[in-house]
Amino acid sequence: MFYFIGLGLGDAKDITVKGLEIIKKAERIYLEAYTSILTVGKVELEQFYGRDLIVADRQLVEQDADSILDGSDVKDVAILIVGDPFGATTHTDLFARAAERGIKCKVIHNASILSAAGCCGLQLYNFGETVSIVMWEDGWYPESFYDKIVGNKTRGLHTLCLLDIKMKEQSVENMMKGNKIYEPPRFLKCKDAITQLLTISEKRKDTVLNPDTFCIGLARIGWDSQKIVAGTMSLLQNFDLGPPIHSLVIPGKMHFLEEELVKQFAVNTDVST
Amino acid sequence: MFYFIGLGLGDAKDITVKGLEIIKKAERIYLEAYTSILTVGKVELEQFYGRDLIVADRQLVEQDADSILDGSDVKDVAILIVGDPFGATTHTDLFARAAERGIKCKVIHNASILSAAGCCGLQLYNFGETVSIVMWEDGWYPESFYDKIVGNKTRGLHTLCLLDIKMKEQSVENMMKGNKIYEPPRFLKCKDAITQLLTISEKRKDTVLNPDTFCIGLARIGWDSQKIVAGTMSLLQNFDLGPPIHSLVIPGKMHFLEEELVKQFAVNTDVST
Repeated sequence: MFYFIGLGLGDAKDITVKGLEIIKKAERIYLEAYTSILTVGKVELEQFYGRDLIVADRQLVEQDADSILDGSDVKDVAILIVGDPFGATTHTDLFARAAERGIKCKVIHNASILSAAGCCGLQLYNFGETVSIVMWEDGWYPESFYDKIVGNKTRGLHTLCLLDIKMKEQSVENMMKGNKIYEPPRFLKCKDAITQLLTISEKRKDTVLNPDTFCIGLARIGWDSQKIVAGTMSLLQNFDLGPPIHSLVIPGKMHFLEEELVKQFAVNTDVST
Repeated sequence: MFYFIGLGLGDAKDITVKGLEIIKKAERIYLEAYTSILTVGKVELEQFYGRDLIVADRQLVEQDADSILDGSDVKDVAILIVGDPFGATTHTDLFARAAERGIKCKVIHNASILSAAGCCGLQLYNFGETVSIVMWEDGWYPESFYDKIVGNKTRGLHTLCLLDIKMKEQSVENMMKGNKIYEPPRFLKCKDAITQLLTISEKRKDTVLNPDTFCIGLARIGWDSQKIVAGTMSLLQNFDLGPPIHSLVIPGKMHFLEEELVKQFAVNTDVST
């Protein structure tokens, strides 16, 4: 059996009892290490599980899925994925390849930012399409996420914006030379995502998103250091939520009960500047 | 501290290690028992945790939240909720009341159908607004869910439809007489939800949803008996997915990789009739 095991959002103890039991007895255990992060690293996880882990980077998962799956028709092999196994798109390739090879799969679900985001006080039923905001760089300034947010907002729906993560990326130079040297991880912060959004709205002379638009910044959801702040874009643009991972919620039409709940996260001018 | 602890979707072992540790040491533990179900009941959970649980029905949570929160300013009190604590709307009242009283809260997130639904092969990023389909009865035939599905579909987005659950409901007669006698639990099945949708489209002479519309029925996601079937509405209208809980996914525009993954769940005519 091949197991996809979600690790949840926080630390080693966010694994489910069921997931932990499978890890204890599996033949081989991979740790997916490029679509999200936990508060703890490989070594701490290994200590907690009492098992060795094989790091599965993007290259291994996307280009050598077969070696990960090998033997799982007769023995138990598992891959550990931060959040829920189906929160990120990359693992579906592995799932498809397993199906092709007739390997039985089982998914051990866990918390995902897609549902945990409800802790900001907005009802999950009132969210529209989830949006990924990519980090602008090197002359690459995509805007498609902006249209999706505006689309949700004009229909009264909230938007959860997942912010870009760059894990184990190569510089163009190293990639050309075939050097396996990787850049340090980088993460798009809430404040910088807001700056990108306001740059687009200004350029387009659009008013749906503007400096007075109310939004909610989420940082490290499910961690002990979790932080949620709510305020106008111009306030949050100057508010540093600290270490990653950040997400940004842009409310559509809020119900008064949602407003009541969100209020507790409001920043005032003194705090935010 | 007041803890909201998600139990995930399947059985007792779907709790996280962190959640279990809190249960072991909490002063008082409530079990929310009316917005969803696990494969196991109160007694099995009590045996697994080694702790007594207090059942929190709708009346207790909605009308006597203060008694649940009492003492949590000085001791640890927890409420256990199937799925993720923020998957259902009812617990936000408790959260708001705790905030009002200045009681510190901590959320232990877990799997929710909102993210676990990704196991049907569709990308979670391509879902629009989530929809609740209510059970038609007693001359009450709401249609608002239909418009939301059509809204998503015309924008190319998938829709996750959560199907109605009636737990611990009173008959009108018993309610009038003040008898605390409850009807057996009832659940809207995929096939019946499809019948309701096709009844609306026929009445409206609408073609966005029709007997040939492709959809995916999900039953008991996260349970050992999980079942996923994909096919036209007319096929799935005659396909019984068995015991609850069911959900229905209505795809918008599918990417070819999504089509590949969904294909494995396809029913053929022989199986479905």
